[in-house]
Amino acid sequence: MAADKTIEEGLEFTPKFNDNGLIRAIAQDARTGQVLMAAYMNQAALDLTVQTGYATYFSRARQKLWKKGEESGHVQKVEQILIDCDQDCLVLKVSVDAGQCHVGYQSCFYRALKKDSSKELEFIAEKVYNSKEAYKK
Amino acid sequence: MAADKTIEEGLEFTPKFNDNGLIRAIAQDARTGQVLMAAYMNQAALDLTVQTGYATYFSRARQKLWKKGEESGHVQKVEQILIDCDQDCLVLKVSVDAGQCHVGYQSCFYRALKKDSSKELEFIAEKVYNSKEAYKK
Repeated sequence: MAADKTIEEGLEFTPKFNDNGLIRAIAQDARTGQVLMAAYMNQAALDLTVQTGYATYFSRARQKLWKKGEESGHVQKVEQILIDCDQDCLVLKVSVDAGQCHVGYQSCFYRALKKDSSKELEFIAEKVYNSKEAYKK
Repeated sequence: MAADKTIEEGLEFTPKFNDNGLIRAIAQDARTGQVLMAAYMNQAALDLTVQTGYATYFSRARQKLWKKGEESGHVQKVEQILIDCDQDCLVLKVSVDAGQCHVGYQSCFYRALKKDSSKELEFIAEKVYNSKEAYKK
């Protein structure tokens, strides 16, 4: 097979990390299908995720490994790791408790662009936990 | 509100593009919740998506705007555009026909890491259309 055919049609897991050594990782609720968050992993984060069964990401802001929930307790138990055709993006199917976003919502995607607007958002969810409490701010 | 509070809790749509002028955009089937693909948009792609109601991305490989389905016919009608807490990732809830991935599957995420393996994938879907036909290869 040609190189791209091997990547697209093959069964070897060859995640493609970008110039910063990162790959996109989308966390999706395995039960409801809700997209919870979009983050990044480096090789070490991916290895830890596979080894431990709990999602570990690489925080670009803090430039360090970040086990999801290490501070808040809202961990992600990984049920399945999917990869896309060109192997540069992961979807993690995860089992979670209530409250995955640090702002207090179940998902980080709690706002949507208003119909017929290109500027104004609307909330599409309600907070499910007190994030100030969880993060001891 | 502090700047990050405005971004996280405000209702102004202020998508944060990266150093290359791109923002991540995840397409999710509005009906089934399946994650279909993960791509990027620049400002022009986002504007066109909002204006036309059909998903337009920016192709990094071809360095140009790319209306999803312009060649294959498998377009994405945008039902809702969600943005995450720090406004650097979009989720597009889309209505689609059968066959969104150019390889021939409904979703680009048609393989998963095998249980207890860190190297081997398995197919988790079957092809739904003849991509060679659609793309006139």
